[in-house]
Amino acid sequence: MLQEYIHAHEQRLLDELLTFLRIPSISTLPEHQGDVARAAEFVADALRTAGLEHVEIIPTDGHPLVYGDWLHAPGKPTVLCYGHYDVQPPDPLELWHTPPFEPTIRDGNIYARGSADDKGQMYTHIKAVEALMKLHDGQLPVNVKFLVEGEEEIGGKAIAKYVPAQQEKLKADVALVSDTALYADGIPTLCVGLRGLIYTEIEATGPARDLHSGLFGGAAPNAVFGLVELLAKMKDAEGRIQIPGIYDDVLEPAAAELASWDSLPFSAESMRQNEVGATSLTGEPDRRVLERIWSRPTLEVHGIAGGFTAAGAKTVIPSKATAKVSLRLVPDQQPEKIVAALRDFVAANTPLGIVTEVRVLSGGPGLVVNPDHPAMAAAAKVFGEALGRPTVFTRSGGSIPIVGDFAQHLGIPTVLMGFGLPDDGLHSPNEKFRLSNYYLGIATVAHFLEEYGNR
Amino acid sequence: MLQEYIHAHEQRLLDELLTFLRIPSISTLPEHQGDVARAAEFVADALRTAGLEHVEIIPTDGHPLVYGDWLHAPGKPTVLCYGHYDVQPPDPLELWHTPPFEPTIRDGNIYARGSADDKGQMYTHIKAVEALMKLHDGQLPVNVKFLVEGEEEIGGKAIAKYVPAQQEKLKADVALVSDTALYADGIPTLCVGLRGLIYTEIEATGPARDLHSGLFGGAAPNAVFGLVELLAKMKDAEGRIQIPGIYDDVLEPAAAELASWDSLPFSAESMRQNEVGATSLTGEPDRRVLERIWSRPTLEVHGIAGGFTAAGAKTVIPSKATAKVSLRLVPDQQPEKIVAALRDFVAANTPLGIVTEVRVLSGGPGLVVNPDHPAMAAAAKVFGEALGRPTVFTRSGGSIPIVGDFAQHLGIPTVLMGFGLPDDGLHSPNEKFRLSNYYLGIATVAHFLEEYGNR
Repeated sequence: MLQEYIHAHEQRLLDELLTFLRIPSISTLPEHQGDVARAAEFVADALRTAGLEHVEIIPTDGHPLVYGDWLHAPGKPTVLCYGHYDVQPPDPLELWHTPPFEPTIRDGNIYARGSADDKGQMYTHIKAVEALMKLHDGQLPVNVKFLVEGEEEIGGKAIAKYVPAQQEKLKADVALVSDTALYADGIPTLCVGLRGLIYTEIEATGPARDLHSGLFGGAAPNAVFGLVELLAKMKDAEGRIQIPGIYDDVLEPAAAELASWDSLPFSAESMRQNEVGATSLTGEPDRRVLERIWSRPTLEVHGIAGGFTAAGAKTVIPSKATAKVSLRLVPDQQPEKIVAALRDFVAANTPLGIVTEVRVLSGGPGLVVNPDHPAMAAAAKVFGEALGRPTVFTRSGGSIPIVGDFAQHLGIPTVLMGFGLPDDGLHSPNEKFRLSNYYLGIATVAHFLEEYGNR
Repeated sequence: MLQEYIHAHEQRLLDELLTFLRIPSISTLPEHQGDVARAAEFVADALRTAGLEHVEIIPTDGHPLVYGDWLHAPGKPTVLCYGHYDVQPPDPLELWHTPPFEPTIRDGNIYARGSADDKGQMYTHIKAVEALMKLHDGQLPVNVKFLVEGEEEIGGKAIAKYVPAQQEKLKADVALVSDTALYADGIPTLCVGLRGLIYTEIEATGPARDLHSGLFGGAAPNAVFGLVELLAKMKDAEGRIQIPGIYDDVLEPAAAELASWDSLPFSAESMRQNEVGATSLTGEPDRRVLERIWSRPTLEVHGIAGGFTAAGAKTVIPSKATAKVSLRLVPDQQPEKIVAALRDFVAANTPLGIVTEVRVLSGGPGLVVNPDHPAMAAAAKVFGEALGRPTVFTRSGGSIPIVGDFAQHLGIPTVLMGFGLPDDGLHSPNEKFRLSNYYLGIATVAHFLEEYGNR
């Protein structure tokens, strides 16, 4: 019945999503503030249309939150559906085959920034609720609350403030997040572990102004080189982080979890060739690749800028240079402790003549979810039925800070049931979401709510 | 007699220079192309007025060259006078106390863009020749050729092509260049050494595209970090270049030259505080600061760019990163050999998973001029007499490519006799040229031509 409903409404369900994807709601760029606001309106309208009540756009210091609920299933559990309507910047634009905000269907995929991360996936929740309402005379098998944010890609400050302040309003038994991917095409996957993230900017200052490298080269400190020297000391040639104490609190996965990872279809060579596209994978040689990305802390430099970078030659000794540096955290690393260790390391390793500053933009811990929770069991069952094979439990190396906030402030676990694919190109040019997975998502979320309501 | 002539014509000599300085001949800005052409006309007219013959404006692919000569002193040496009539852009305009192209006399200085670099200094050559002609019935003590360019501030492409193609026309015994400064106020200074320069771009490529650092962090190579690791290996913590063989051919200054440097007024602390503005000077601790900037090769990173560098946070593993890297060369380092050593080093030290490319943008050797050359001896004598103390022989850590071209293609040394001061603010707001040094320049160049003709 649900399948028939979705099939009958295929075109409309797609058209609505495409309209949503056309809004360039890039949360990090001030010039798109109006677009982000428009995307919030779109979400609020969609919630109302689906049948949610108490729909509101909640102003914040940054981009607004959108809330809505339906609480007429007494005795049934409450599911808090979370998603985000903001997207990453699309640069480099020239690598997109079709424009990032003109969604295009090719080979069964929707190509657009935000298609998989997270507009397309978040929208499956709304459409699942809408379908259940239509099919059951405005009734749902569980209580639902929606909380959708517009700052996920820039650290989620507003929601991080809102959740602890609104514990009663947001009270629920479990959260549902669709912002992850199937382990591989056709494999129903629930994610039970996430890495945390500390995101920083490190700025180095050398001379008071750019100097002529002929007149001062050899005697004056160079901010770019100073930053380069500092950053290079942060990892050894095999990727081990050299900041003292960084591995002290790392919780090793249980033997059974490692064994289950070993049973997953995984090819390092395929990952290297098809997903990474580099001459080699890298990282701690004594660790499985899946450990490196799921259960090991990492340090990355996301960007660096300093001095003269236009075409041609200019012989300056640069005064300033900045790098974006993050650490991915795993249970049980404490963000505060890691930030302190990073600051100590920078202070101790700043080269002569250079002054450094560490600015922390955001931070949150890694976490793991218990796969035996009733909601997890319900999700595993319906997801496995939808794809005709047992659901696997994996982790993600990414960070979804809100999951940690739900655990900490609402005391609830999160079902991470994502419908993306590993090659969806999140944060990259030509991001896509498979069209059939969009419909799969709507059906599976609806079945999950039904199954969970029956337990 | 010469002094009296200059004194009698002081006002006219100043007015002419001010007229020259009012032409905004900014070679790098296309909208000033007409002004650059007007400045070339001005130079040609001044050469004709001074008594030079065969004056011509030579069209090039860029801005024109101006040539003129007087060759009626058989048996006497020939001096090739070089200068440039183009100037740097004046930005940032708001920092100028008076407009850059409305020359203003304040506290005995001419404030204007190009006053010291190089219009004012170059014009001393023309006015010196004119004075000698007037005083000696149209005769000069030596043969002279003038070659004045309009692209010095943008790389000097046209003259670099012209010199090797016109070896017969430009044949001379020595070149005279006034585009440098006194070591300090009142100290007659001849520059006898320049560093060469190899300017490169080094590009690192890791993954085929920017990747999500959560999903791949720990296993995928990072182009920015790979470049950082590579660059950091190029120098040790004390600034010694680690590229094998780099110091093999470095010619140490003679003990007498080092002793003369030790006799110069120099304060590292003053340089640190007033010129560099950093917490410390840096560089090879077992070398004098003047050695580090005059007679030691250096490696600098002028700029670096890669990954996400806008405001906020983006968690990518960057696919590409590029750095502008130069080496300053000293005698007898061979540019080709150094480029090869750099390429070998980059190939040997490129981290796992990274592909690097080295692009060489330009290259030229360092050089020293023999202070015992007759022209140098003549210049040292008259300059010392003009300022009442012995001429000092210094070097510059910068590069003046045309001096290398004269050496390579015409086989002649260059007398680098400049009348600027270290704080003239070349390329900066409020560039100035001390008025008395303008007249000093005219007199000293004229005396030099007389003295050299008598040897």
